Amino acid sequence: MYYIGIDLGGTNIAVGIVTAEGKIVKKMSVPTGAQRPFEEIFQDMAHCIRTLLTETGIPEGEIRSIGIGTPGCLNTKEGILIFAGNFKYGKLVNYRQLMKNHFDIPVYIGNDANVAALAETKVGAARGAESAVMVTLGTGVGGGIVLDGKIYEGHLSAAGELGHLVLVHDGVPCTCGRKGCWEAYASVTALVRQTKEAMLANPDSIMNQTPLDKVNGRTSFDAAKKGDAAALSVVQKYREYLADGLASIVNVLNTEVIIIGGGICKEGDYLLGPVNEMLQKRVFGAGLLPERKMVVAQLGNDAGLVGAALLHA
Amino acid sequence: MYYIGIDLGGTNIAVGIVTAEGKIVKKMSVPTGAQRPFEEIFQDMAHCIRTLLTETGIPEGEIRSIGIGTPGCLNTKEGILIFAGNFKYGKLVNYRQLMKNHFDIPVYIGNDANVAALAETKVGAARGAESAVMVTLGTGVGGGIVLDGKIYEGHLSAAGELGHLVLVHDGVPCTCGRKGCWEAYASVTALVRQTKEAMLANPDSIMNQTPLDKVNGRTSFDAAKKGDAAALSVVQKYREYLADGLASIVNVLNTEVIIIGGGICKEGDYLLGPVNEMLQKRVFGAGLLPERKMVVAQLGNDAGLVGAALLHA
Repeated sequence: MYYIGIDLGGTNIAVGIVTAEGKIVKKMSVPTGAQRPFEEIFQDMAHCIRTLLTETGIPEGEIRSIGIGTPGCLNTKEGILIFAGNFKYGKLVNYRQLMKNHFDIPVYIGNDANVAALAETKVGAARGAESAVMVTLGTGVGGGIVLDGKIYEGHLSAAGELGHLVLVHDGVPCTCGRKGCWEAYASVTALVRQTKEAMLANPDSIMNQTPLDKVNGRTSFDAAKKGDAAALSVVQKYREYLADGLASIVNVLNTEVIIIGGGICKEGDYLLGPVNEMLQKRVFGAGLLPERKMVVAQLGNDAGLVGAALLHA
Repeated sequence: MYYIGIDLGGTNIAVGIVTAEGKIVKKMSVPTGAQRPFEEIFQDMAHCIRTLLTETGIPEGEIRSIGIGTPGCLNTKEGILIFAGNFKYGKLVNYRQLMKNHFDIPVYIGNDANVAALAETKVGAARGAESAVMVTLGTGVGGGIVLDGKIYEGHLSAAGELGHLVLVHDGVPCTCGRKGCWEAYASVTALVRQTKEAMLANPDSIMNQTPLDKVNGRTSFDAAKKGDAAALSVVQKYREYLADGLASIVNVLNTEVIIIGGGICKEGDYLLGPVNEMLQKRVFGAGLLPERKMVVAQLGNDAGLVGAALLHA
């Protein structure tokens, strides 16, 4: 038996045939065209599925479910997208019905951050754990919670918005409308802002070899590794922001594992070693309870696709 | 069938016989004597149980379980207290065995804040809800999480430490060792500190009619209601601290109901009306999702005892 996993992003749609163990048999990707009506987007998805079935020789009858991971707020029970800023027509869209128009196969949907967390917990970095939270550092700070091997969605499928934990009361404005969210300090977007501020405040810093409009998440890290003091202090502060938010998450949810995802994890131990040390000191009961386990995500871009395929379980 | 509920506090032990519906048949209370060895404390508990059985005429055979709510960090599966600052001998104490020495009845234990949340969710302010968090404003900020009708404890039974969500990165030191926890801003202890600071900074405020060492959680509220500007600003800031932490909790857990407990809830709508308004505006998806439901705890001091009795379920 096989499962279809679809990672419906704002830019690309990735579609794959996945085994029960979360192995990708074959996958393909097409542009989303997020400005188009959903009927067209789903037509493309259906076409991808048929292409993959033909190319692998797997008969449609062996596909047990179709899972769709998508940004936005969902009613997963009914298979409906409630709203998403990423799509032009992103309000009250019946994903399940749209897919049912093409295939008579059970359809499941899940928030993209949640399905990634599910994939990493079931078959990725936290394999074997009963519970995990996944924090993805990118444009924003994404969050997903898996308890007892299942996505924890909360009452209105709106739980797990870990980026919108407060970090600084009355702090920097967040895209969500309130001030001081963790995302406004610990996202890569925030790191870029912090880097630019430090560059302007420290004209002698070697970070200024990079033009302001070319600054990215690596700029401060690269300079810090060369011993640049201003860059070091950006990196150290960023680590503290990360650790402080993670400590809050541990204090509330206390999952078996914390998974950190996003491109910035490539900084590896240079970023996460000190973060882990700070975390262990800041959690409630520090020193009295065993250390909290923190791991780096393993599935990369496939997490969404694989997690969507695992939604049936 | 009946259930024994025990609320083992640092000062008093309350013991009660409770029905399956959470009604107290009869209860009594004795001083804890927290400096004594646990054998003596459990002897007193057993004595209370026997007294209540005799007085009610309920035979021991009709008691289905004994539940103990206690401060501290627990291994609830094994029935063991891992540590608690409140008791002189509060480390690695086998509560279950200590009670089994007196009664051959199943024994369950739970953290005091958690069992209170369970009681309010099952038979109190959030009756009928599938999920709830309870936040108790007192010396600290206590927290309990109930999901699918059960206490959510997390991996090391250390979840639900809602008071130790960060509110202000690098802020006021908290008793837990880190800086800026919500408890350090939203507890009554914090409110008293904020009140004193405002009194010193505003010598003309009528709050100064109260001597500094007599200031309590009501001082600023009483003066604010009389129109005192300095007091009003203490109250308003306190409401904001409360709302901001609650918004974080909603963004992570998104339970059906939020229960607020503690003596300060007697301020009623004057405190909680504005807090609720702020909360609805600060949660993620504000305006796009239905309002979050916030209620005041109903069971008062009985919540611990009743919740402990409900631990069997």
